[in-house]
Amino acid sequence: MGDIVSKSEFVLNPVTAPEYRCDPITGIWSIIAPERAKRLAIESENRSRCPFCAGNESLTLPEVFAFRAEKSIANDSNWRVRVIDNLYPAVRLSSTEVCYQPNDCPDHVRTFGGGCPAQGFHEVIIEGPEHERSFVKLSKNLFREVILSWKQRLLFYHEKKEIGYVQIFKNHGPEAGASLEHSHSQLIALSDPPGFIAEEIRSGKDYYQQHDRCTWCDWLKKELDLGIRIVAQNHSCVAISANAARWPFETWILPRTHFSHLEFTSEEIFEDFIALTQNVLLGLHHALLDPPYNLVLHSGPMRCKNLPSFHWHLEILPRLTQPGGFEWATGRHINPVPPEQAAKFLHRVISGE
Amino acid sequence: MGDIVSKSEFVLNPVTAPEYRCDPITGIWSIIAPERAKRLAIESENRSRCPFCAGNESLTLPEVFAFRAEKSIANDSNWRVRVIDNLYPAVRLSSTEVCYQPNDCPDHVRTFGGGCPAQGFHEVIIEGPEHERSFVKLSKNLFREVILSWKQRLLFYHEKKEIGYVQIFKNHGPEAGASLEHSHSQLIALSDPPGFIAEEIRSGKDYYQQHDRCTWCDWLKKELDLGIRIVAQNHSCVAISANAARWPFETWILPRTHFSHLEFTSEEIFEDFIALTQNVLLGLHHALLDPPYNLVLHSGPMRCKNLPSFHWHLEILPRLTQPGGFEWATGRHINPVPPEQAAKFLHRVISGE
Repeated sequence: MGDIVSKSEFVLNPVTAPEYRCDPITGIWSIIAPERAKRLAIESENRSRCPFCAGNESLTLPEVFAFRAEKSIANDSNWRVRVIDNLYPAVRLSSTEVCYQPNDCPDHVRTFGGGCPAQGFHEVIIEGPEHERSFVKLSKNLFREVILSWKQRLLFYHEKKEIGYVQIFKNHGPEAGASLEHSHSQLIALSDPPGFIAEEIRSGKDYYQQHDRCTWCDWLKKELDLGIRIVAQNHSCVAISANAARWPFETWILPRTHFSHLEFTSEEIFEDFIALTQNVLLGLHHALLDPPYNLVLHSGPMRCKNLPSFHWHLEILPRLTQPGGFEWATGRHINPVPPEQAAKFLHRVISGE
Repeated sequence: MGDIVSKSEFVLNPVTAPEYRCDPITGIWSIIAPERAKRLAIESENRSRCPFCAGNESLTLPEVFAFRAEKSIANDSNWRVRVIDNLYPAVRLSSTEVCYQPNDCPDHVRTFGGGCPAQGFHEVIIEGPEHERSFVKLSKNLFREVILSWKQRLLFYHEKKEIGYVQIFKNHGPEAGASLEHSHSQLIALSDPPGFIAEEIRSGKDYYQQHDRCTWCDWLKKELDLGIRIVAQNHSCVAISANAARWPFETWILPRTHFSHLEFTSEEIFEDFIALTQNVLLGLHHALLDPPYNLVLHSGPMRCKNLPSFHWHLEILPRLTQPGGFEWATGRHINPVPPEQAAKFLHRVISGE
């Protein structure tokens, strides 16, 4: 989430800890995170010094992970990728607290107002020491180390018993929710898979129980046979224009062979994934003139290593349209660009045909 | 949906009819509506003449309903509120076609790509003959006639056997998806209640079967007792800061007594609803400096008149934050403004205390 509102009176209200709040009718929850409002006031005062540039480490919380120069020490300025706790977290976890999930909330809270603690971790992955705003313009090595840092953090959270799911995502451009220019991605670690992710896991499990096969594997095979929505591919990964694309040029990248977790994927697939992702993002960058976009990784839940019914994938969501009343009322999107046309166009740009 | 992308090659691709497309895993559908892309090119050429201003009726499709001066005739310029078919519809219905809903799609289409016709009606309600961009600045009479035209169109669609649900919504400001300035709302009529609406109907029915009472009635009573999220109220309607607000200052307006449909509500409630809605929107306008927002009406489904388990309401969704990767990955929102603080702030502004 990023804020485009100018600071206002409410920003300075007393802070309380993040809470899950449930819709009284549907049970769908939101996270109310008052600390994130402080960001507006503080970031606007700090415009002159980017907190993510090397040399400004003191403006952030201490690092929790980094790729850095040999013999350099934690929190000095000799890093290449730096992972820090978010100064304005959407969720929090102190070591003494129980990790609540929305379904643990007492019935009266779920049904009739109030909330319960939204617990977890919220980290920022800073994608390079220079003030580069564009992910695709990073060197191949740096781009690779960013994805490698995602993998490292995912592996880290498999060891945390409180955490059941880790959402890695990226907002590029203010229209996609980015509030700071310096290229970065984010990670929110929660007690359980949330919303759509839980739905995908459930749906994958149902399909597997009925067919003894992974639904993504079956779908991918049909898409490859059909060919009309293939954007790009290499030896072990494929980029596909989503059939029910919510956004013009929405593109999914996934491995050809079955793996439920990015972090447990074979070395070869991992490297192919990095190469294909940078390639597709470069294509989008050129074809659509540096569009705003979100990246969202769907990797398997924590506390397990190999699920036969889930298939990890990355979703690239260009933000060229603005959802309006229909989308928010119904949760269903209207997209003016047919996925087959999007695939054809992007394929041409990426392959240079 | 509104577009913020500049026109590009894909806009000029061949047009096909709108289609429902299903996500291969979750079954969640989108509408692919290529005709809406034409809008970009044509609207940017027509910037000098607003198609919604009186005198420019020839730039739109013929009206399907209007409040107009006595003795004036359809499509002349003596109207106050004018309802037209959308020139770039998200859904279409010809009189000879069967009305498909996504669940009618053959299994292979739902599961493995392609689509089926997205059928229905898409109308625009033009909110006054003058080029006024702000809904709240309309005179009381005109504001009333806009809401009255919503009611008239809802009543009209109760007579159409193909239609099972009508979504009325409004996008104010480009950040909320509006592509034309001139104040207007929209209506999309579909074969069945979509997404969240279907979920609300289902959840309301479950609650009713268990408790023999309406879940909204019960919730409203508790909110009124508690008082901390009440934004404003009058004799028959209440405005409440949503407990699981997805957006800062998200506010719901609903009648105190049970009615499932706006269009079948008593005269007194209807008038009180109009007065309270204009009041709350004016408060938001002043408090947040003319914020972009969406209005979404949740009224009962077509083909029935009085559901004991559904309670109509209007949702006001200010668009001060931009959803990012977390929201699109999970369908769950992060909101920095606690609903109780939002209610207190808005209550103060609206009541003038």
